[in-house]
This record gives sequence, structure tokens and C-alpha cells, in this order.
Amino acid sequence: MSQLTPTPADKFTFGLWTVGWQGRDPFGDATRPALDPVESVQKLAELGAYGVTFHDDDLIPFGSSDAEREAIVKRFRGALESTGLRVPMATTNLFTHPVFKDGAFTANDRDVRRYALRKTIRNIDLAVELGASVYVAWGGREGAEHGASKDVRVALDRLKEAFDLLGDYVTEQGYDLRFAIEPKPNEPRGDILLPTIGHALAFIERLERPELVGLNPEVGHEQMAGLNFPHGIAQALWSGKLFHIDLNGQSGIKYDQDFRFGAGDLRQAFWLVDLLESSDYQGPRHFDFKPPRTEDFAGVWESAAGNMRNYLLLKERALAFRADSEVQEALRAARLDQLALPTAADGLSALLADRSAFEEFDVTAAAERGMAFERLDQLAIEHLLGAR
Amino acid sequence: MSQLTPTPADKFTFGLWTVGWQGRDPFGDATRPALDPVESVQKLAELGAYGVTFHDDDLIPFGSSDAEREAIVKRFRGALESTGLRVPMATTNLFTHPVFKDGAFTANDRDVRRYALRKTIRNIDLAVELGASVYVAWGGREGAEHGASKDVRVALDRLKEAFDLLGDYVTEQGYDLRFAIEPKPNEPRGDILLPTIGHALAFIERLERPELVGLNPEVGHEQMAGLNFPHGIAQALWSGKLFHIDLNGQSGIKYDQDFRFGAGDLRQAFWLVDLLESSDYQGPRHFDFKPPRTEDFAGVWESAAGNMRNYLLLKERALAFRADSEVQEALRAARLDQLALPTAADGLSALLADRSAFEEFDVTAAAERGMAFERLDQLAIEHLLGAR
Amino acid sequence: MSQLTPTPADKFTFGLWTVGWQGRDPFGDATRPALDPVESVQKLAELGAYGVTFHDDDLIPFGSSDAEREAIVKRFRGALESTGLRVPMATTNLFTHPVFKDGAFTANDRDVRRYALRKTIRNIDLAVELGASVYVAWGGREGAEHGASKDVRVALDRLKEAFDLLGDYVTEQGYDLRFAIEPKPNEPRGDILLPTIGHALAFIERLERPELVGLNPEVGHEQMAGLNFPHGIAQALWSGKLFHIDLNGQSGIKYDQDFRFGAGDLRQAFWLVDLLESSDYQGPRHFDFKPPRTEDFAGVWESAAGNMRNYLLLKERALAFRADSEVQEALRAARLDQLALPTAADGLSALLADRSAFEEFDVTAAAERGMAFERLDQLAIEHLLGAR
Amino acid sequence: MSQLTPTPADKFTFGLWTVGWQGRDPFGDATRPALDPVESVQKLAELGAYGVTFHDDDLIPFGSSDAEREAIVKRFRGALESTGLRVPMATTNLFTHPVFKDGAFTANDRDVRRYALRKTIRNIDLAVELGASVYVAWGGREGAEHGASKDVRVALDRLKEAFDLLGDYVTEQGYDLRFAIEPKPNEPRGDILLPTIGHALAFIERLERPELVGLNPEVGHEQMAGLNFPHGIAQALWSGKLFHIDLNGQSGIKYDQDFRFGAGDLRQAFWLVDLLESSDYQGPRHFDFKPPRTEDFAGVWESAAGNMRNYLLLKERALAFRADSEVQEALRAARLDQLALPTAADGLSALLADRSAFEEFDVTAAAERGMAFERLDQLAIEHLLGAR
Repeated sequence: MSQLTPTPADKFTFGLWTVGWQGRDPFGDATRPALDPVESVQKLAELGAYGVTFHDDDLIPFGSSDAEREAIVKRFRGALESTGLRVPMATTNLFTHPVFKDGAFTANDRDVRRYALRKTIRNIDLAVELGASVYVAWGGREGAEHGASKDVRVALDRLKEAFDLLGDYVTEQGYDLRFAIEPKPNEPRGDILLPTIGHALAFIERLERPELVGLNPEVGHEQMAGLNFPHGIAQALWSGKLFHIDLNGQSGIKYDQDFRFGAGDLRQAFWLVDLLESSDYQGPRHFDFKPPRTEDFAGVWESAAGNMRNYLLLKERALAFRADSEVQEALRAARLDQLALPTAADGLSALLADRSAFEEFDVTAAAERGMAFERLDQLAIEHLLGAR
Repeated sequence: MSQLTPTPADKFTFGLWTVGWQGRDPFGDATRPALDPVESVQKLAELGAYGVTFHDDDLIPFGSSDAEREAIVKRFRGALESTGLRVPMATTNLFTHPVFKDGAFTANDRDVRRYALRKTIRNIDLAVELGASVYVAWGGREGAEHGASKDVRVALDRLKEAFDLLGDYVTEQGYDLRFAIEPKPNEPRGDILLPTIGHALAFIERLERPELVGLNPEVGHEQMAGLNFPHGIAQALWSGKLFHIDLNGQSGIKYDQDFRFGAGDLRQAFWLVDLLESSDYQGPRHFDFKPPRTEDFAGVWESAAGNMRNYLLLKERALAFRADSEVQEALRAARLDQLALPTAADGLSALLADRSAFEEFDVTAAAERGMAFERLDQLAIEHLLGAR
Repeated sequence: MSQLTPTPADKFTFGLWTVGWQGRDPFGDATRPALDPVESVQKLAELGAYGVTFHDDDLIPFGSSDAEREAIVKRFRGALESTGLRVPMATTNLFTHPVFKDGAFTANDRDVRRYALRKTIRNIDLAVELGASVYVAWGGREGAEHGASKDVRVALDRLKEAFDLLGDYVTEQGYDLRFAIEPKPNEPRGDILLPTIGHALAFIERLERPELVGLNPEVGHEQMAGLNFPHGIAQALWSGKLFHIDLNGQSGIKYDQDFRFGAGDLRQAFWLVDLLESSDYQGPRHFDFKPPRTEDFAGVWESAAGNMRNYLLLKERALAFRADSEVQEALRAARLDQLALPTAADGLSALLADRSAFEEFDVTAAAERGMAFERLDQLAIEHLLGAR
Repeated sequence: MSQLTPTPADKFTFGLWTVGWQGRDPFGDATRPALDPVESVQKLAELGAYGVTFHDDDLIPFGSSDAEREAIVKRFRGALESTGLRVPMATTNLFTHPVFKDGAFTANDRDVRRYALRKTIRNIDLAVELGASVYVAWGGREGAEHGASKDVRVALDRLKEAFDLLGDYVTEQGYDLRFAIEPKPNEPRGDILLPTIGHALAFIERLERPELVGLNPEVGHEQMAGLNFPHGIAQALWSGKLFHIDLNGQSGIKYDQDFRFGAGDLRQAFWLVDLLESSDYQGPRHFDFKPPRTEDFAGVWESAAGNMRNYLLLKERALAFRADSEVQEALRAARLDQLALPTAADGLSALLADRSAFEEFDVTAAAERGMAFERLDQLAIEHLLGAR
């Protein structure tokens, strides 16, 4: 079997809401009927996926009775067992119902905040029951379009309160579950709280149990702010906070597109895979994409498979790039080895005493040294294009 | 004297490089001659400023001898004394000289990194000597245009090392000086490390002496990533990390424009002043702008004065907005008072036991409540326009 | 009555789909019930509007029988007559139904294109019957997310064919109706054909009856491409092609926000009103906004009224700006009068023979002249803020 | 010789200002010394280029005497003759000198406008003398940062006047030279006139001699407005106005980056080459890029060569994509063949009479047809990656 054929060992996972997206957009009605979650499980298993993930309402329609809920979960669990698919992650839908129109954990209305916490806790129980170890929190409605409608400092207090309470809950229950915040700059709110990887990382440090909370960054979300996604992931890894990742595609700063992985910015996709595969991240490669509404179900599964195939192709290219001796030489020419050396391993006093570091430093000669980055980057493009 | 006439009590400060900008841009040569820093000090004092700030090379041309340096500093200090202007902040130029073409603290070349640290330390001494309590660090060249030219995780190690060494230095010297990192997403590098307020806040938490390091956010820099500047400042305040601020104007996501404050996004400027004036931030209102290169020196001083006048006008409008009883009523209608209440002051157990929070919560009725934000926002626009 | 109270003489018009928007967005369900078009007519008349506009499906639900259609139109006409509201414009919904998922006039499927033309023609008849003189065409689904899925040259052939056929139709019918194309760069398609004012203006020149077709530019659509909206309108006016205009608000490059006019970029809103009021444009000031989904119906009408009030406030400010003698002096100092002079009224030969134009031109002296733009712009801000 | 080795038959051309860029940016001084144009000619010829292009001041330093000018041109012509390199295009520098700080053809100062025209005409003579058939006009300084500083309608009058005069000139001289306008949305001005391909196309239609004027679109300039470059080129081709093209790379909406072709948005680069190679455009493939300032001269030439190699690689990939029978099948499945059919070849009456087009059209069945775009696009990615 080719290494381009996905297997569970690749840890590819999909949200039920991705293949199940019906194509409703701000200007158009659904183009596809609802998809039975059990069918999604079966089809994804056939395609080589490792697992599925879900929002509470993806699996159990909002407003279901307890009996309905039980039946649904039982049937879903059956599908998991028969296919071997895992549920490594789950999350809460705190955005579709109009009650969340002004937010969930930071809604101005206190009763809405309390309801949001309870809705979350209820699904945490199910997530743990189904084996999830990561619980994603995308606060898509936590934000504002009006300058005075949200005191952001106070809203951050409420957001911290919510995560502290959830941390209490999983701790008291003894759950082996960590939270992963998913940042996004805007849409559906004009500006969303914790708009980027950085803002979410900083927020986590102010929580009572920062060790329980990390990130679930999404390719398109950072790119909607014009940010370099691999750079953001590198900082998340450096901070020890990459708990999960959402892979998809986006064509620049515009509405949230959720293309399949590989579509959109292909060069950043390459550098992302290069980074992930050289890191200690062991978690799922989770696709959070939307098959375009132009597609029927054949197109949906084509699109789903494309995510995995593109990841594997880029992985093959990235490994070949790193293994190429010309690339290794080019990296040395670009002095990546020097970057890895401490700047002042000998400490501050030695640095201050070192006249070659300042008084006698030949700044002109140093300025004339070329960095040889274009050579290195051309090698990368050629590997990406399969031309080496 | 009108409250629209700036006085030192307003704490308005200007960088020497702002009024002294000669108008060189990527496509054009200088349109104005160099400005003597002493003339800038005198003129800014006349206009009502509180202080001036500088990069080492703004005051002391790169490559000056020790004797030249001493003479320049003496003359500058004389101008400060005669005008009463303060130097609350200083910073290092680690970007103009070609030696920094690949960065300073994170340059691949180790000797460049060492040189950058020594150049910084040298100017810290001068900053402290002149009375500065904040030292800004804008890492404009710390970044990359090529995916493989910078291992971002390793570069962050180097950046941490630099700030840790600088923290050692000021601690050992007993300086009363704190650092303020100035984030920027891009330009002059394709992607800059610590691209937003959030990324910088998160980075600080990994330093050896986080208490010594905060932020110097700049209006235009966050807006270049499409981010809401007042929201970012709110998170910086919430994190206790607003050590300094750069005020200017920017018209959306494009090249760095550095318009005078009030030009660019006027509504965000209003909300920013509203936020600053209601916060515990006591530091300078520092203008980091560039008088457009279309202007002669008359235009430069017109532009400088415009920054201060616009701040004072917006402050007047913001105070009137908050004092208006209709606004206060509108804020209550929008339930800002409820946002200020803890969501679960009674703790997790009580929340879990509260059937009205979930099982018996009338989600439909809650969803139907209007938030009354448009009314509130219309009042804000009318205050901004001076129409109430 | 204050000049800030809207009257029909102000020619303010609203789409039925604006106040009637139910708040469905990509991540959330409707937050408001459907609004009866007759109620909208009555309420808008009370607020001082001049007219209403509609997509076919706004008034007559998709799939209505002929009898239903007739009854609806009759009732709607009654509301118009009793209120005096006009219908200066109408348009076709070629985007909501899934049949248009790949476009309407440029759908790959020929039968969809034919259906789209027939649907349009049917509503043209109704538009004319109700007195409309402008028919808007927003081709929101004419575009692509995939590089090979649309041959743009061929698609432009189809688009031209469609407008040529529609031109034939209104000509043959003897209708006094002109078309207004509404450009948009993206959303709901990844890239939309005729993405900006410029592209649409250029397209029109290739039609068989260019005189029948002009533009309906929308504030937010140009700003979604980071373009200066007043500049675009100036070019449309210069080209004699401003047939209609959509006023609303947008906060920079992101998803389509459709805020009320005045929200978003307030300074561009000011310059737009300044331009419109100084131009020969006599058509409606049409608000194409969406009351935020946080609002109930009280908020909807607050939002609707805000559009008009903000326009009138900005008009008052713009007129005062132009009437201010200091402004007039500043305009002369900025040499706007010289811009109005022909560059070479005496023709090419005289220019070539004029040694003062080149050989003897003192380029250094000319370069030193300041443009005095900051003074002029500061006067504008102060007028906008009501501070003069 | 591999088809990946550039030869003059590929018609690759470079501006002298590209390889000669010294690396001065808004925040940094030059990192490379000036490059002798003759050396550039020789080196580009060695690399396989077809020609070079220049601004007047690139070749002949601003302010040179007539004797200096003559000597420079003679030596340059010698280099062209000895290498066989052609000069298919030339242009004017109307942006570097401070005299152009408020524009050239639309400067408020009339004498600056006259000077700009004369400077242009002077270089047109040289361009023709050196064999150029296209004269590019990039109006980078024609724009504004202040709402009142430029009456755009009047400025467009001046811009039209300038192009009409230039059209008179080349006509009277009997020159076989056409003009190509290069649009750009912003930078160095806040907003530039004719910001996109569309605006420039529309402007041309209002000139006295529209047949003499077409476009020189640049990859990065359209992408700075978030626009799809291949779509823009398709409209330019459709309008018969693609007179020249500037190839380079840009990473989204930010400052003008001028990366080598292939860097930046690789997928758009692929579709662009696919389009150009399938069109009737026979002109140069002109690279308008800047070798990053991190590079020394070795890196400059590496970067120059990369442009050509990436074009040839993408051409190879595009030709293979179109030749693949699975792709051809996928194009049919996506109904590109139907898009090529007229919508109503039989005319309006037949369309109106065709009940299958509307009354009896099964809109539900039509809506259910999948467009099969994901399959097609996945094939394209795999061809791009060299994986088929």
C-alpha cells in the first residue's frame, strides 16, 4: 500500500459537521440533505480516517429528549465499534441557537452564560464517555460589533470564570480531559475575543489551571488575519500548548472559507506539515473543512479524501526536502546552525567584556554577508512541485 | 485656556523620529531635510508636549565618536532642561543598518545578535541617565520571508535569551526601567515574530522576569492585521501589561501608514480614548506617526499638533458620552451591568444543581430578548459627531 | 422640523430584505421572525423614507402560484398607495435557491442560465409595473472557488450575452428602465466576476447597449477589497455610470457586514456624502444594510432610522466644511484650483516648445513646496466632529 | 537542453531596477551597492533572458548632462548588441524624485504635471530608439491620503489629458508604440487612482485613442487588494487589453513584496501560467521582482533565475494538466463544455417562448446536480505537486 493511502496510523480525523455541512451560507439555502452521523462514520472509516469529532448538536439534535439522546448515542457508539473509529475530541455548539446571539460564556445576559456552561458540561460527560481526551472551545459568538456593547476587560473576567469552572469540573470528576481554545479574529462577530493564537495563549496564562488548557488553532482563522499559520503553530509548540489542530484551506483575508487542506495557501500548507512532522505533536490531524456547496455527496467524499491525500503528499515532499543533502548544505549556508547556538552561553558579563562583540565588531563586513535564503527557498519550491 | 489646548499634564510625547521623518519611502527619496533634535524639542515644548523619546541613532548618528556622542547628549540635555520636556521612554534602532537585514536578537548570525544586545545595552544606559522608565523593543527585523530561513521555535529561544539578558542587566545595574515590546505583523519583514498584542503577551509569560516586560502596542500595527485595537488594549490592560502606547492612524490592512492620531479609523480612535481614560493607565500618550511626505515643516508641525488636538477632542466626546443619562440607560438596556456580575458566584455545585440554569431554562424566551445595541451605538456616533 | 429629520425629499430608500433580514448567518439560525412587507412599508413611511425596493422573492415567496402572486402584489400596491412610498428600484434573487449554487447568468449549466434570465425578465415586468426606473443586478453567485471550474473569458461571454438579451427585452418592451450592476469581490463565492466598480465599468463598455447599463456600487463591497469607496464613486460619476447606490457600513477587509450607514469607516462615509451632495447624482440614497442579529424589532427600526440620521448629520457637516472660509483658503493653499486647470490647454506643440516646462524647470524648488494637506485634513476632522 | 532551461524563445524579460534594487526599504538602508546596467545585461543574457526594460533614471541617473546621457546610452546599446538582448518595453520614473510627492500627471501643481509629461516624452524617444513597442505607465504617486486633497473626478480629467497628449505625440511621431497602464491599489499613496485592472480598463475607454492604451497588470498589485490575479488577466484578455504583464510574488494583503515569481500564492501562479499559455498573448513574460535585501549578488542572480525556472516548471505542469484525459473527463463532468455554449443562440423570442426554460423547468432536480469541482481541483493540485 502506497504511503499516500491514508490509514488510522496517520491519525486523520474529521468533524461530523464537516462532511455533514449542508451548504447553507449567508446568501443561500442548503444544497445537500442532512447526513446521518452513522453514515459519516462508516464512510470516513472506509476512506482511512482514524476518528470523528462532534459538537453536541451535530450528534444529538438540539431539544432531543433523554430517550432520543440515549438511542442516538447507542447507535453512534455501535458505528464506532464496528468501524474502529475513535472520538479523540468533542466540542459544544454555543453559536447556532439564537440564544447565543450575544455570546455564550461572555453573553451580557447572565442566565445565558449559565446555560452555556451547563450545556458544555453536559457534553463533556458524553465526550469523556466516548473516549475523548481533548475538548475544544471555539468562542465564535464571544465578541462584538459595537464599541460599547461589550466591556472587553469584564468579558475576559467572565471568560476566565468559565474556563476556571470547567477546569474545576473535570478535576472534580477526575476526567483525563484537557481543553483546547480555538481562536478566530472575526465572523460571525465583527471582532471575536481571543482573535489569534497569541491572544489565546496569553489568556490561558491567567487561568487558575493553565496546565489544563491549550490551543486548537485553525489554518484559515489565522490566515483571516493575514498571519503566517506555521509561525503561529511554532509559537504554540514553543509554549507547550498545541493540544489539537484544525487543518483546512483559506484564500487570504476574507470570509471564512474552510476549503479542504491543500487548497488555499499551498506553500504555508507545506511548511505546516514540515513543522508538524518535525515536532513532538502526536495528536490528531483534524480536518475542519466544508465541502463546497456546489458539490453533491460524491463531491463531499472526494473533498474529504483530498484533505488526507494532500497531507500525505506534502509530508512526502517535506521529508524529501529535509533529507536532501543540497538542502542541508543550503541550511548551513543560511546559518540555521548558528541560530541554534545560544547568543551568550557564557553569560552577560562575558558579553559585556567582549570587545569583538561591539567596540571591535566589523559591522560593515557583517552587513555584506549574504544570507543565501533565495537558494534555500528555491530548493523548497522545487521539492514542493515534485521537481527534484 | 480651553481643555482642547494641550499641556504637559496631558502627557503627550513624541518620538524624535516622527517629526524628524524625512519622507523617504520605498519608492521615493527624502522630501524634507534632517531636523535638529534640539529644534524638535523646542518646537514640541511650544506645542504643549510633555516629552520626547528616541532611538539611539535618532539622537546620536550611527558611528559617532565618543566625543561627538558626549557633545550631542550634553546639548540635548540642555534643550530638555530649558524646555522642561521629559524623556519617559527610549529605544534602540535595530533595523536601519544593513547589518540587521536578517534580524537583531534573532539574526541567524550569532555575532549580529551579540552586537544587537550590546547596542541595546549601551542605549539603556543613556535612557536611564535621561530619566526614562520604559524601554521599548520593536523587533521589526525579527522575522522571515522564507519558510526555511528561520526556525521559529529556535528563534523564540533566542528572543527569550535576549530579553532575559536585558532583564539581568537592568536588575544588576539597579535600574528602575521596564521593557515594552511593540508587536507588528509584517513590514519590513514578510512575517514578524510576535505579530500581535496577543503573541507578545504570551511570549512574556515564558521569560525569566516577566514582571519586567510589558507592551507598547501601536494603533496601526494591530489594524494592519485587521484586529480591533481597543480590544487588544483591553486585553493588555486586563493582563496588567500596558506599559506604554503608540498612537497614530491607519486606513485598514495595507502598508504601515503612521498617519496622525484621529486620521484612519476614527471610530476605533474614539473607543480607544474612551478605554484609556477609563483605565488605570497613567503613562504617556505617545504619538508614533509620520507627517506625510507631501508636507513641508509647516505641515509637520500642523500634523504634530493635530495628534494632540484630536486626542483631546475625542476625550471630550468620550467623557460626554459616559456622562449622558440616556447613554447610561442604554447601557443598562444592553445589560452591561449583568456582564459585570459573576456568572456563578455561588460556585460550580450550585450551578450544577440549579435547574433554572438548564433543565428549566426557557431558551426560546431568552433568545427573543433584543440586546438594544443599535440604540447604544447610535448614541455613540452622535456623541462622536458632536451632535448631542 | 429639523433638517436632521428625514423626509421623502431626501430620497432615502430601503430594501425589503434589509429590515426584513431574520439574522441567519453561516453559524447561526434566525433570531427574528419574518416581517410582513406591508408592515415594512408602513413603518418605513413613518420613519420618513421615500421608497422601498425588493428582490422578487422578498415580496413573492419562491414557488408561489399565480393567484398568490397576484394577491400579494395587490396588497403591496395598496400599502404603497396609502403611504405614498415609491419603488424606484427592483432586482432579482439569483442566489438563495440551490439551483444557483454555481451561478445564474454564468452557471456552467445552460438550463440554469436560461432559467435565471426568465426569472429576471419576469420580475422586470413587475418592477416596471410598480414604477421602477432602475433594475439592479448583483451577480453574487457568478464566480468560482476552483481555478479550472470557470473559464473566466467564456463566463464573461455568457455574462455579456445575458445583459445584451435583457437590453433587447427592455428595448422591445419600450420600458424606461436601466440596469445597475452591483460589484462585489467575494462572498458567497471565493472570487466573484466583476469584483469592483472598475471591473464592472469596463465590462459595460463591451455590451451591445452600454447606455442602458450603469452601476449600483455598495460601500461595504469596495471596502472588502480595501478600496476607497468615495474614489470609486468618483470614477463612476466621471464615467457617467452612477445609476444607483447602496449605502451601508463595513469595518475593513473581512466578511460582508452590512452595518447601518455611518457605522464602519466614518471618515469615508463623510467624504462620500460630501461627494454625492456636490455631484449631479439625483437618485435614491438606498440603504442596503442588515440590522444586527442581536436586535429585536425595536432595534431593527432604531437601526433603520440611524442610517438616515447619520446621512443627514454627515450632510450637515459636509456642507459646513465646504462653506467655511478657512477651508476654502486651505483648498487654495493645497492648490486644488490648479488641479482644475488643464495641464496643456495650449496643446502638445506648445508644451514641447516650453523650456520652462523641462529644460529650465527648477525641479528642486518645486520639490520643496509643501502641499499643506495636513492643515486641510485637520479642518475636515474638526468639521466631522462638530468641533468648528 | 531541458525545457526547464530558459532561452530567449521563452521571452523572459527583467527590469534593470529589479536585479539592481539595492534593498532600501522604509525602515532600512541599502544592503547592496549599485549594479552597473551593463553588468545586468550581460548576466541576464547568460541566464537565458530575452530582454531588459528600464525607467529613464535606471539607465541615466537623474540630472545627467547630455554628454553623459549619450555616453551611457552608447555603452548600453553596445551591451545589448553584444548579448542580443532586446528592450521590448520602457517606462518613466515619476515617483522617486520629491518633486513628484503629490503625483505626476495628476499633481495639484500644474508645472509638475507639465514637467512629468516632458520627462515621459523624452524617454519615449529613447524607448523607441532602442526598439521598444510597449511603454508602461505606473502612476504610483497619482493618489491621495487626504479626502479633500484630490478631487478624483478632476484628477481623472488630468490623467485623461495626459494620456491623450501622449497618444498625440506617438501618433505625430509615427512611433509604433502602445501604452500599458499598470494599476496598483495603494503604496506609496494611501489610495492610488486606477487601483485595479478593472478601473484601468474602464478609464482607457474614455480616452481619445483607446486603441493605443492597454494594461500591464502586476501579480502582486491585484493581490494587495485580495483580488484573483488570473481572473483579472482573463478580463484583460477578454477586453483585448493585455499589452504586457509583470510577474512576481506576493503573500496576501500587505505591503508590496515583489517576491520572485512562484513565491507567494503558488496556486494562482499555476492558474496564471495555465491561462497565459492557452491565450493569444505573445508578449514578454516580464519579471518585476525585488531580490530580498537579505541577499548578496549571488542571491540576486539565484533569485532572478528562480523566476524563470518557476515559470517553466509551472508551464510544464499546466500543459500536463490540460493533456491528462482524466482532467478532460473531469472538465466535462463539471460542464465546462456547456459554459461554452451560448445561453440563447436562438434569441430572445425563443427563450421567452420556451416553457422548459421556466414554467416547466424542474428547479429541484437541477439544484441537486453536483458540479464535481472538487474532483477537478484535486487533479489540479496533484498535477501542480508533480504527483501525477
